[in-house]
Amino acid sequence: MTQYHPLTIQDAISLAKKIPGHFRKDAELSCREIGDGNLNLVFHITDENGKSIIIKQALPYAKVVGESWPLSLDRARIESEALNIQHSICPDLVPQVFYSNRELAITVMEDLSDHTIMRKGLIEGTAYPLFAKHIGRFLARTLFYTSDLGMNQQEKKERVKQFINPDLCKITEDLIFEDPYRDSPNNSFSEDIRDEAEALWNDTELHLEVALLREKFLTHAEALIHGDLHTGSIFATPESTKVIDPEFAYYGPMGFDIGAVIANLLLNYSAQPGWSSDEQTLHERRERLLRMVSDVWTEFETNFRALWNEEVLDITAKTPGYQDLYVQKILRDAIGFAGCKMVRRIVGLSHVADIDTIEELAIQEQAKRTALAIGKSLIKINRNAVSIGEVIQKAEQAAQQKGVRV
Amino acid sequence: MTQYHPLTIQDAISLAKKIPGHFRKDAELSCREIGDGNLNLVFHITDENGKSIIIKQALPYAKVVGESWPLSLDRARIESEALNIQHSICPDLVPQVFYSNRELAITVMEDLSDHTIMRKGLIEGTAYPLFAKHIGRFLARTLFYTSDLGMNQQEKKERVKQFINPDLCKITEDLIFEDPYRDSPNNSFSEDIRDEAEALWNDTELHLEVALLREKFLTHAEALIHGDLHTGSIFATPESTKVIDPEFAYYGPMGFDIGAVIANLLLNYSAQPGWSSDEQTLHERRERLLRMVSDVWTEFETNFRALWNEEVLDITAKTPGYQDLYVQKILRDAIGFAGCKMVRRIVGLSHVADIDTIEELAIQEQAKRTALAIGKSLIKINRNAVSIGEVIQKAEQAAQQKGVRV
Repeated sequence: MTQYHPLTIQDAISLAKKIPGHFRKDAELSCREIGDGNLNLVFHITDENGKSIIIKQALPYAKVVGESWPLSLDRARIESEALNIQHSICPDLVPQVFYSNRELAITVMEDLSDHTIMRKGLIEGTAYPLFAKHIGRFLARTLFYTSDLGMNQQEKKERVKQFINPDLCKITEDLIFEDPYRDSPNNSFSEDIRDEAEALWNDTELHLEVALLREKFLTHAEALIHGDLHTGSIFATPESTKVIDPEFAYYGPMGFDIGAVIANLLLNYSAQPGWSSDEQTLHERRERLLRMVSDVWTEFETNFRALWNEEVLDITAKTPGYQDLYVQKILRDAIGFAGCKMVRRIVGLSHVADIDTIEELAIQEQAKRTALAIGKSLIKINRNAVSIGEVIQKAEQAAQQKGVRV
Repeated sequence: MTQYHPLTIQDAISLAKKIPGHFRKDAELSCREIGDGNLNLVFHITDENGKSIIIKQALPYAKVVGESWPLSLDRARIESEALNIQHSICPDLVPQVFYSNRELAITVMEDLSDHTIMRKGLIEGTAYPLFAKHIGRFLARTLFYTSDLGMNQQEKKERVKQFINPDLCKITEDLIFEDPYRDSPNNSFSEDIRDEAEALWNDTELHLEVALLREKFLTHAEALIHGDLHTGSIFATPESTKVIDPEFAYYGPMGFDIGAVIANLLLNYSAQPGWSSDEQTLHERRERLLRMVSDVWTEFETNFRALWNEEVLDITAKTPGYQDLYVQKILRDAIGFAGCKMVRRIVGLSHVADIDTIEELAIQEQAKRTALAIGKSLIKINRNAVSIGEVIQKAEQAAQQKGVRV
């Protein structure tokens, strides 16, 4: 009988040797624990020829900013099952799972250390010319094929059951949709933007929009969403994109995943004055990031509509006008959720390195104000938005108003 | 080990004797099978003093209009678990469950034979002066307390899982949202209204609205809904109302249950020329039915808003404007679903006695055309409706246009 215990380096090596088809029995394996230790152990195991795998093990608690709270190990099951589904739909964009063990809460998967965490790459100014194409396809295919449009509607209900994920959803419900809009002990922001935080707590127009978006997150079981698709959940090179860490996966609104991608590109956009060395670089990177935002949506929409036209299983889905309204709903949700995700990264518990590691504090403050301005305006326009162009416009406006050099 | 087999009369009596606290060990029990045999066996068991209980057993198939198809026995679990939850929320409006057995697919419950099936009562012209108050309270309380508004949001997710109900949802998806809008072999309508059926198949404006409503049925996990709340699922007397048969229960849109009640009152309204003996009676009954429709909504809304103001658990729910938009959404959904439920009872597989047992065929045809006209107009106005008054107005208009005496 296995029983849950955190793996030691030696345990990880023994386990690695047992995974069929990877290492020779007499291989000399070396192993490093490379996780951040907050939620998971991550073991990187290599043989003498450089062949490698990753063993990820969930820890029974979460540590965030010193706090520790218990967290269900079931998230490891959710993660490995979501990875399997996503990999079957987009084999080139999701790491392959070789083995998983529910009791030990482990997933053994493809090693992606030749890729960089995209957030880090963006901070360093790396261009990802294929990213929008890749992620647009990932979003369109995973969302379509796990929804009532692209799979049997009775099997989909069993999938909803399989991915009921209360613990991880609670994190999102609290940290994204609740805390930033009131004076919560879970918030975390620098004193120089206290005025912004207090304005958030008193903006009832904003609260109404966030309540409506939160209600969608709570009730709209549209598709198996990744649930945490920020640029830290993406491994990338200029040629390749891999989506990892779907432990927040559950059946939710499609726009949530798209909004997460857009929000994190716009957070990097807001941070650019801290990373671009000169006017020319700043201008180019900002243009590139906004083009990426626009392209992510367009690639999603193009792929999604093509799947709808060619692969749809739902016989009512061919009704004239339905696809347009459905796509419009996804766009609006994506814009609203993107706004929520930007706001929470500035005043909520968990921040992003794009902004928080800017050394010069005045520029860091300016980046925060820019991100908040974009976030708030996206939330406010979400229900009436008709094109991704409005997002670009709001981003440019906010950047200008917050005095970013243009 | 018990193992599933359909109970005989003798089995039912033996089982009844084993239920604690009901019958004396030496009681003389008599038992009649009173189900319609299409979906369930229903045993009515009485002792010599008139004390009685009901044993309901699911059959592993459904028979409708001669067709037979397999149907999951899990619906008996769903029914008894839903009854328990609804009874705990509205003890006076839901029969008490004394015992249930998952393997045998049986539920033993309170006998309500002193009540009449409400559809029958309405056909006979019975007034139910307390019905709107009762059902409005049932709807408000069961929907509120099983939703993210009135229960812990993480426990609610476990409830969603508990009530995943693919087989029974499929019946609704097909028979209500799909078949009536195309030339399906599952449809059933009299030849005198073939023009109406064909018009439905070609009305793409209607198809779009139905596709949008169907999408809500498929994805909006708002509350534990009854799922089949027509007047055949309600036992009533002028003083008492009991909601039975929640085997279609699952987490769905709140408006679906409210719409079902409204639709069935309006079906009876459409049928009144067949049942009212004179102009005066016709006029009175029609007025009464429309007042009931209006009162059902008003009682629901009043109770629901009071619960929201006094009992809401969701801290974002106090956001100004949110309750109004939420209630408006429920109203719109209720109106749309009511329309779908009317249409399907005229051209779809399963009809209502209110209309189909009208003897004079010209009047029956007129009733069908009236019901279809009301149903279609409710579907078409649903997304922009702002008050229940619009439903009343559409019903009166349709009745007038279809030549009902007014």
